[in-house]
Amino acid sequence: MSLLLSRRDLDFLLHDWLRVTELTSRTRYAEHSRETFDAVLDLSARLAEERFAPHNRKADDQEPTFDGERVHTVPEVADALRAFGRSGLTGATMDASVGGGQLPNVVANACFAWFQAANVGTSAYPFLTMGNANLLLAHGSPEQIGTYVRPMVEGRFFGTMCLSEPHAGSSLADVTTRAEPLPDGGYRLFGNKMWISGGDHELSENIVHLVLARIPGGPPGVKGLSLFIVPKHLVRADGSLGERNDVVLAGLNHKMGYRGTTNTLLNFGEGAHTPQGAPGALGELVGEPHRGLSYMFHMMNEARIGVGLGAAALGYTGYLHALDYARNRPQGRRLGVRDPRSPQTPIIDHADVRRMLLAQKSYVEGALALTLYCGRLVDEQRTAEDAEDRDSAKTLLDVLTPIAKSWPSQYGLEANSLAIQVHGGYGYTREYPVEQFYRDNRLNPIHEGTHGIHGLDLLGRKAIMDGGAGLRLLAERITATTARAHHAGGAAAGYARELDGCVARTLGVTARLWADGDPATALANATVYLEAVGHVVVAWMWLEQLLAAEGHGSAFHDGKRGACRFFFRHELPRARAQFDLLESLDRTAVDLPDDCF
Amino acid sequence: MSLLLSRRDLDFLLHDWLRVTELTSRTRYAEHSRETFDAVLDLSARLAEERFAPHNRKADDQEPTFDGERVHTVPEVADALRAFGRSGLTGATMDASVGGGQLPNVVANACFAWFQAANVGTSAYPFLTMGNANLLLAHGSPEQIGTYVRPMVEGRFFGTMCLSEPHAGSSLADVTTRAEPLPDGGYRLFGNKMWISGGDHELSENIVHLVLARIPGGPPGVKGLSLFIVPKHLVRADGSLGERNDVVLAGLNHKMGYRGTTNTLLNFGEGAHTPQGAPGALGELVGEPHRGLSYMFHMMNEARIGVGLGAAALGYTGYLHALDYARNRPQGRRLGVRDPRSPQTPIIDHADVRRMLLAQKSYVEGALALTLYCGRLVDEQRTAEDAEDRDSAKTLLDVLTPIAKSWPSQYGLEANSLAIQVHGGYGYTREYPVEQFYRDNRLNPIHEGTHGIHGLDLLGRKAIMDGGAGLRLLAERITATTARAHHAGGAAAGYARELDGCVARTLGVTARLWADGDPATALANATVYLEAVGHVVVAWMWLEQLLAAEGHGSAFHDGKRGACRFFFRHELPRARAQFDLLESLDRTAVDLPDDCF
Repeated sequence: MSLLLSRRDLDFLLHDWLRVTELTSRTRYAEHSRETFDAVLDLSARLAEERFAPHNRKADDQEPTFDGERVHTVPEVADALRAFGRSGLTGATMDASVGGGQLPNVVANACFAWFQAANVGTSAYPFLTMGNANLLLAHGSPEQIGTYVRPMVEGRFFGTMCLSEPHAGSSLADVTTRAEPLPDGGYRLFGNKMWISGGDHELSENIVHLVLARIPGGPPGVKGLSLFIVPKHLVRADGSLGERNDVVLAGLNHKMGYRGTTNTLLNFGEGAHTPQGAPGALGELVGEPHRGLSYMFHMMNEARIGVGLGAAALGYTGYLHALDYARNRPQGRRLGVRDPRSPQTPIIDHADVRRMLLAQKSYVEGALALTLYCGRLVDEQRTAEDAEDRDSAKTLLDVLTPIAKSWPSQYGLEANSLAIQVHGGYGYTREYPVEQFYRDNRLNPIHEGTHGIHGLDLLGRKAIMDGGAGLRLLAERITATTARAHHAGGAAAGYARELDGCVARTLGVTARLWADGDPATALANATVYLEAVGHVVVAWMWLEQLLAAEGHGSAFHDGKRGACRFFFRHELPRARAQFDLLESLDRTAVDLPDDCF
Repeated sequence: MSLLLSRRDLDFLLHDWLRVTELTSRTRYAEHSRETFDAVLDLSARLAEERFAPHNRKADDQEPTFDGERVHTVPEVADALRAFGRSGLTGATMDASVGGGQLPNVVANACFAWFQAANVGTSAYPFLTMGNANLLLAHGSPEQIGTYVRPMVEGRFFGTMCLSEPHAGSSLADVTTRAEPLPDGGYRLFGNKMWISGGDHELSENIVHLVLARIPGGPPGVKGLSLFIVPKHLVRADGSLGERNDVVLAGLNHKMGYRGTTNTLLNFGEGAHTPQGAPGALGELVGEPHRGLSYMFHMMNEARIGVGLGAAALGYTGYLHALDYARNRPQGRRLGVRDPRSPQTPIIDHADVRRMLLAQKSYVEGALALTLYCGRLVDEQRTAEDAEDRDSAKTLLDVLTPIAKSWPSQYGLEANSLAIQVHGGYGYTREYPVEQFYRDNRLNPIHEGTHGIHGLDLLGRKAIMDGGAGLRLLAERITATTARAHHAGGAAAGYARELDGCVARTLGVTARLWADGDPATALANATVYLEAVGHVVVAWMWLEQLLAAEGHGSAFHDGKRGACRFFFRHELPRARAQFDLLESLDRTAVDLPDDCF
């Protein structure tokens, strides 16, 4: 049995719950079937197990190094990425016209989860590339797509996103990289970019950087940011590689985890090279000037769901490792067995180990359900026949995205901590994999917007957009689920009552926070709000799974019922305490003077 | 200003709150005064800053290696330990008759916290040595004390505790190391010990192992464990080092953090050496046969408070680093400032950063207060004039110890996670110290008994011992504080009402859990119980600090009021949700069949 993910669970989520085969009735997915979905999932699981998982530890131990000229990585990384490129998975969701597979987003996400469970460090390269390619597919010119996207789909070029600068991380308004226009319509870029994942390496023929920069004379702040393609090597008209562009690696960041992925400081136009005989990194504008951030945001929902998915996958593999350890590690005796000469019992027999396992299960299966549900919404947004359905999928996705990014990041990490705890001292050593999962997963609450940023996004923007339409829609969808649960009766009806109460409180608390129109007080509580609503949403995901399991009597389905029960009894009550706090409009931290900290 | 700990806070806790100078009226501490306390605190802070902190990262990067013969560590470790040894701090709390300083335990703990904040990896060597020496002082013969303890006090010998074996971690009943008696009264030991911190190195002249082993013919289980001194090098009658004993390093464990401390697998009597011409590691019995575990337990309270103290210290230094970063890192603008050309503001101006800082402050200052309070109880237990006071100090200490070990481990780690979060992407890199604090602190919920083990200790033993006398005493002490708070009025009275309610619920829930006399149900909830009661106890510590700050109007004291308010508003309500859960006698995880996980 795989210790990466549970195929049984994926099949349950995709088919019994999300009914993804129904998507094949839509034109975009008409070539697909349950068989093609199964085949690509099988392929992903096999590649992840055989090519990605085996070097996960090695790539962590021997992180990439830079000799001043080139970046060195363990050879298994390049081998794995070649296999991934050959598999066609890079273009899994893209149009057939560019060589893509036109797979539903939700199925592709289930495939990608295998790779993230196996090796987040190596997987990051193609996932960054997909984000880059998807952005160009949406906003690039046909020539740009031909020149840059096709080689990415073929696995020959990799891509990055270059947003942050040393003094401008969360605050993109302060980006200062400059793009000087040239007479031929091109640009020369000058500036420094920080935290660029996959920013340099020798793993692909070329690296396509998507760079936020300012065209002189544009408006200040985020409204003056434009987006540029800046390749590491210029590409000739025939597609062959030309000169070296002036994008130079200034240094590698050394991280706690995710160590297989290079994370770089890149200098643009510092004079190391003079492409086409002049200073400055040559770049092409994507779309129109000054619209760079909106293009980025266009792809942000999917990137953020991707982070949540990765966090869920890391949490999931940690859980399966902990479960396997708990079944096989003998230690101590069952309660009541007093004879010390009797054989030791596997630790899964100890109540607290069971509690830690069930907590992990409720976190990681809840997080996986949430991120796949969002992936399904992406498909709805893209392909639902009715315009209204597409719109409401988009609205719901907007509200759920900060939660789908943050909740799995927080609780996938918590699951990894519990996986260590189940292993005891062994789990703290690098001889066991769970300590790496924990280090790797600690990045997820930071990148693609910190926890705090997503709190502001949810409470300050998504919860009140269009007069609160998004939140009302979320409430309607949850209430539709609870209505089915009331009808089903039994335990489901009890959970539905709890959840109905939480929905009412979510709406009430949102109104209360904004009642005085004082953003300072409202937003001081944004992270607590994010966490509370996150628990409500994941409780909803559990009630959905419970209903999907109804009438099935296997151990698998009983496990779903047990984890659902655990979540409603152990976890959801946390949200109630948080709602109480939110209702009190607490200002303790805001009001305390700086010198009192 | 130091980024290790706040001397201002230590002075507040030790003097304004715990009134440690009053201890100097007792015979044992009669040579001491505020001046000697200040001097040893100054010395500790200086040594920690100058000798321990500077190589904290280096010793983590270049962890000890074993070439098959010797263990290699970075040279700064040996330098720091020599300075520590020369300072006399190893014997700080020990009797003057063995060269010790007879310092109150609470003052010594405040000293030791500086070293743990500076460098847990290097500090572990002397702290393990102190635990070893204290045990021998309590249970060793005068000859053993002369031979082994005096060189430890002088900083020449280091000590270890050898309890666990590969198949016997939490389950000491399963220890199998064998001690064969010799005609001369000595023993020869055979067996393998696992997880031995400081088990081998070249940092001291000798290593004194205290080893749990079985004398053949003794009872099975923990009642057949005896304690032995097994030195790495035999010690001649004149104190000089003799032959190499047969204790051999079988391997180093490679940990996520605490990497500066060797953690070892040791083989006893495997035949690498034949001391005095025969196989087996030569050992001396400590005290009487079969009483080894009770000797260990005698010292366990102090060792466990030491773990809590270290976790608090790591959390504390992380908080100070985050605060410093937040004051100096400009990013974004204050709420309402819309001009992107205006200068960026330090991130301490952002509400969520303030919330994360105040959460850290409430955790780490609460944890430090709790561990120092327990240190004060150790002094009471040892030196109170009245036998009744000594007894009640012991009883209260027994109840508080699992909390003083676990709560700081959990929330010191959480503080370190928030410190990373305040730093954003920088905090995740090894260029900043907070990521190491987080990795180092992750050990604390595991060693000296996992979280789960302490839950069992609290609910299964301490809460019900002597018909619940310990818990009643705790309730009385908390109620004595709330009575003062009611009298003080204002905010304190409000918190006191909350806390009175929590005390009532603690007693009620304990009774309810044990009402059916069904340990399976009670103990299935032991960890939740530990966490809930932990929050109540730390809320008590905050109310104590609030009262100690009364009538003082400085920024420091306002900070105490702010953190107290934060703890009562944001944190204590968590315990209420947990009490509700406990009252429901939840059995979800226990009842779910194994194959459903």
